[in-house]
Amino acid sequence: MSTAGKVIKCKAAVAWEPNKPVVIEEIEVAPPQANEVRIKIVATGVCHTDLYHLFEGMHKDGFPAVLGHEGAGIVESVGPGVTEFQPGDKVIPLFISQCRECRFCKNPKTNQCENGWAADSHDVMALAESRFTCKGRKVLQFMGTSTFSEYTVMNQMAVAKIDPAAPLDKVCLLGCGVCTGYGAAVNTAKVEPGSTCAVFGLGAVGLAAVMGCKAAGAKRIIAVDINPDKFEKAKVFGATDFVNPKDHNKPISQVLMEMTGGGVDYSLECIGNVECMRSALESCVPGWGVSVIVGWTDLHDVATRPINLMLGRTWTGCLFGGFKGKDGIPGMVKAYLDKKVKLDEFITHNMTLDQVNDAIELLKKGKSIRTVMRFSPQ
Amino acid sequence: MSTAGKVIKCKAAVAWEPNKPVVIEEIEVAPPQANEVRIKIVATGVCHTDLYHLFEGMHKDGFPAVLGHEGAGIVESVGPGVTEFQPGDKVIPLFISQCRECRFCKNPKTNQCENGWAADSHDVMALAESRFTCKGRKVLQFMGTSTFSEYTVMNQMAVAKIDPAAPLDKVCLLGCGVCTGYGAAVNTAKVEPGSTCAVFGLGAVGLAAVMGCKAAGAKRIIAVDINPDKFEKAKVFGATDFVNPKDHNKPISQVLMEMTGGGVDYSLECIGNVECMRSALESCVPGWGVSVIVGWTDLHDVATRPINLMLGRTWTGCLFGGFKGKDGIPGMVKAYLDKKVKLDEFITHNMTLDQVNDAIELLKKGKSIRTVMRFSPQ
Repeated sequence: MSTAGKVIKCKAAVAWEPNKPVVIEEIEVAPPQANEVRIKIVATGVCHTDLYHLFEGMHKDGFPAVLGHEGAGIVESVGPGVTEFQPGDKVIPLFISQCRECRFCKNPKTNQCENGWAADSHDVMALAESRFTCKGRKVLQFMGTSTFSEYTVMNQMAVAKIDPAAPLDKVCLLGCGVCTGYGAAVNTAKVEPGSTCAVFGLGAVGLAAVMGCKAAGAKRIIAVDINPDKFEKAKVFGATDFVNPKDHNKPISQVLMEMTGGGVDYSLECIGNVECMRSALESCVPGWGVSVIVGWTDLHDVATRPINLMLGRTWTGCLFGGFKGKDGIPGMVKAYLDKKVKLDEFITHNMTLDQVNDAIELLKKGKSIRTVMRFSPQ
Repeated sequence: MSTAGKVIKCKAAVAWEPNKPVVIEEIEVAPPQANEVRIKIVATGVCHTDLYHLFEGMHKDGFPAVLGHEGAGIVESVGPGVTEFQPGDKVIPLFISQCRECRFCKNPKTNQCENGWAADSHDVMALAESRFTCKGRKVLQFMGTSTFSEYTVMNQMAVAKIDPAAPLDKVCLLGCGVCTGYGAAVNTAKVEPGSTCAVFGLGAVGLAAVMGCKAAGAKRIIAVDINPDKFEKAKVFGATDFVNPKDHNKPISQVLMEMTGGGVDYSLECIGNVECMRSALESCVPGWGVSVIVGWTDLHDVATRPINLMLGRTWTGCLFGGFKGKDGIPGMVKAYLDKKVKLDEFITHNMTLDQVNDAIELLKKGKSIRTVMRFSPQ
């Protein structure tokens, strides 16, 4: 029996308020409207940005919401005007849309999309009206996606179609963390062959940044984390040197300057801590060092002395690794299928949606790299 | 009678201590040592960086010193090992050397030179031992140059040979201010044809930045200054729009965002004020906006919210407009002789060395763009 055109009742993890566990609820998911696609989510990663919203962002609005933005699924039905997708397509929801029409989409220098920018305040990246209701109450879509639900609805400009051969419980990680780190190295830093890189923070994003540096031909990749348990994993992705700031009683930028005879060519901050962002910049060699802000925070200013930039360092950043989603994700899926990009190695835990609070706790405590929650057999 | 090999007694403006007028003194200038060149300075500009050292930098060391770093002159004699120069050559002293041998000089991405970096603290750009004595006391060379003296001594790696046809009382401005602003637009921002630019601060450096934006083909150049008297001059150099922050009761970044439908492609901060640096960055369009810090200060941190960089803006800076001095200055001299670069229009006052304190006062009060002090007929 087709569900097209009907409200679907399904399970979702609803965040009713900040700093509380999410609750598995039955929600109603309205049919897709014009230019929208309803997606049956098959698997989703749990990413630090979900936690940030829930625990650290100090957002008081933005609730209730269904979190999750690193998912993969199958198109269930499409609304009027949708020509790019049909039921059965394997897809990845995009928290940064690609309308292909705005001046940002037409500019190869950026993956921003003006048509996706939200005017609302609960999240800078929110894309869509919500199609969710729970207990008679409107429930918001987090980052326009909300993959902690068995079904979600997206505008078609925020969905990437992928290879039907892709295993969704692996490629879901391309919906955020892996592309974010990998792309920061490859697209934004534009790491050059033979260069020296430093990656601050060895969560999934940092590990993906290490992988990106290696893919770009970096000769030396210095992995920096205060949790030395992560160094072994970083080695798997290509890190060559390992620095624990706790082992040093001087600024980490000075440590890296000394290790490299004057600073690294590229640094990537994959934590979301403004002091680490400063350290990452100041670890770069004057003249041409490039530091990319990858980790997310909006609580504080990031700062440095002007001379650190005037000596020719470059400070920039990206969201989603600079990938234009529709253009970039299919290529990353292919790279995974061709064994040129690792995904399995990020997955430390497999769970079901019912275990979402356990998955959140593991990530908060730094005990998982990625937990993938599988909703149903593919 | 040749002066080669002998100590030369000559006039110089000596800064004995901070926050006091400089004093015209007779100093002794020792002969050039190995790889050094003694230069008879013919003309020098007075630049804000001279004032910064004297009045704002809070330096307590670095005195006594001969200020001045924007000069032009004629080689008087050369020390052992000098092959690139001979007496009579017209030259411009460089406060950033170009040894052509270090890894920075060999890298086209930067104009930094490792062999010119000073270990001492009185100025980040100091290059040389001093060859000056006054009343039995060692007098320092400011920024390694010290052009407020009839003679100075430079390492040959910090001297650019220029066209014998060049009028030294004009091309002296290429020793700092004009190259600093022009190069920031052309070399560092790499302004593209058809783009929109904003230049903050309309002193000589800012006006030169406007000229650089125009030379690079910018379609719209927004000149920003709290002194509207400068707008007329900015028009001469190519500015198309004029904004006085005092005319608005909202942040200037918001004003520029609204004027340009989303932000400028390039912004150049030519003041040396960290709040203006922040405004300049935040005036840029997300996605590809580039903001270049050109104005000098080392008193405070510069800061912004990380999201302003994560949306794809780039923050960088340069010294001396990113020009490698020996390579870049001769081309700028030629461009002036070919009437492709303006210099005369920067010169609001002509004086002699004896009037140096008047020249400093004019600049402090914002009443001059550039005063050129002529020491002797060419």
